[in-house]
Amino acid sequence: MAQKSWQPNPRARRQRPKGRPASSRFRPSGHEPDSPVLLYGWHTVKAALENPARRIRRLLTTENALRRLADDGVTVPIKPELVRPDVIDARLGPDAVHQGLLAEADPLPVPSISELASEGIVLVLDQITDPHNVGAILRSAAAFAVKAIITTARHSPEATGVLAKSASGALELVPLVTVQNLARGMEELRQHGFLLIGLDSGGDSDLADVALRAPLALVFGAEGKGLRQLTRATCDYLSRIDLPGQIKSLNVSNAAVLGLYVASRRLRG
Amino acid sequence: MAQKSWQPNPRARRQRPKGRPASSRFRPSGHEPDSPVLLYGWHTVKAALENPARRIRRLLTTENALRRLADDGVTVPIKPELVRPDVIDARLGPDAVHQGLLAEADPLPVPSISELASEGIVLVLDQITDPHNVGAILRSAAAFAVKAIITTARHSPEATGVLAKSASGALELVPLVTVQNLARGMEELRQHGFLLIGLDSGGDSDLADVALRAPLALVFGAEGKGLRQLTRATCDYLSRIDLPGQIKSLNVSNAAVLGLYVASRRLRG
Repeated sequence: MAQKSWQPNPRARRQRPKGRPASSRFRPSGHEPDSPVLLYGWHTVKAALENPARRIRRLLTTENALRRLADDGVTVPIKPELVRPDVIDARLGPDAVHQGLLAEADPLPVPSISELASEGIVLVLDQITDPHNVGAILRSAAAFAVKAIITTARHSPEATGVLAKSASGALELVPLVTVQNLARGMEELRQHGFLLIGLDSGGDSDLADVALRAPLALVFGAEGKGLRQLTRATCDYLSRIDLPGQIKSLNVSNAAVLGLYVASRRLRG
Repeated sequence: MAQKSWQPNPRARRQRPKGRPASSRFRPSGHEPDSPVLLYGWHTVKAALENPARRIRRLLTTENALRRLADDGVTVPIKPELVRPDVIDARLGPDAVHQGLLAEADPLPVPSISELASEGIVLVLDQITDPHNVGAILRSAAAFAVKAIITTARHSPEATGVLAKSASGALELVPLVTVQNLARGMEELRQHGFLLIGLDSGGDSDLADVALRAPLALVFGAEGKGLRQLTRATCDYLSRIDLPGQIKSLNVSNAAVLGLYVASRRLRG
């Protein structure tokens, strides 16, 4: 594959958001404070029960699932409600693979960017709306020891239900930081020392050839739409992952795990 | 991360299927010969229209989508039926992102393993049932120029609907070979010169450290269940992808794209 030489993104450091200083101290706007987060499935509920920061309001469980939790040494912090599987089916719909476990819980506290340590890798997701994809990205983020995921409060799926199930427990491990304005959040990351690399099929160089350093933010856009213009302009560099076949773009969770693999190996040296 | 030294899988070349010679000349059993394959969404339908091997029976399209096909220079081989989007909604359900295009088509011919060239990389999927995952794997396979995907005729999703949509056109590019007995199919690959590597979180060595050669078959199991015992035993080696974080297993399409990335880079050099 032809490799272009590596050039900084000429569009970077232009079109910055103006106005008041960067801040991301917002709560997610989509979630009603009183409505519970729904967590179902073995890995998802087990991880929530094991997370001291997660307050469980209700736990619906089948006899089998409760026995399995006991066998695994999981402490159940509240009195579980023993139910038949079809009670959980009726609550979640026929397609949810709940494995006999459904918890209602409080949302986790949302840290701000200024509370994050300036180390390792964070992911920035620019309006990726599919909860399966965001859940799979969370799971891969936990597998690659990512420090946080930054998303927009709007145009992002809520941290509940399908997203939590697809994350397979990772929702309890990787902080989800929601910001109102992604470009401002990215500026705040830069002020904390992060290098901002946008992944884009038209990027200037293959990610495997870029001089990376920690702390590093990898920025991904939605499939089809890609990175929004202001998001692109706020990155330090735009980078691609070279693909030798006929299709030149990947499912976004597949692109994210490749980006994490390449970057984490290069940062480890 | 600690790296164990590389050892061949001691379970390989035992527990071979006995009896008649390996053969994979079967048709998929799950699909009624007269029922059409449903293809929807821009990339999926466009790729089907551009594939001379795909016979289209009907094309339902909105005015906008038909204009977009014309703008892209796509030849429509049959008289399209102009409809409003809600007609396609009613056919597919409210969650299908069809972008104004729905085609009914014949299934593609299913090649046998003996018809495949002995070159490059193939993927073997051991009862991966989720059509989103198999579709995303197909898409990544097309992105990495994979020669074929081998699945079981049973316990695999049909090459239609959600799978085709998730594959984003790749269904037209990567042959899907269905076999009745996966271990026999793997033996047939071996007779054709393929090295068989099973991906497993408990594998003996990191895939990045394995001496790979083409033709190569990468074998993936379902999430949760992993590779079945006979599938594991039929692999030449079992290999893992080291993950530095707290979660040690990935979504299977994420694992597959990492395996493809590592293997294709090593085979290139």
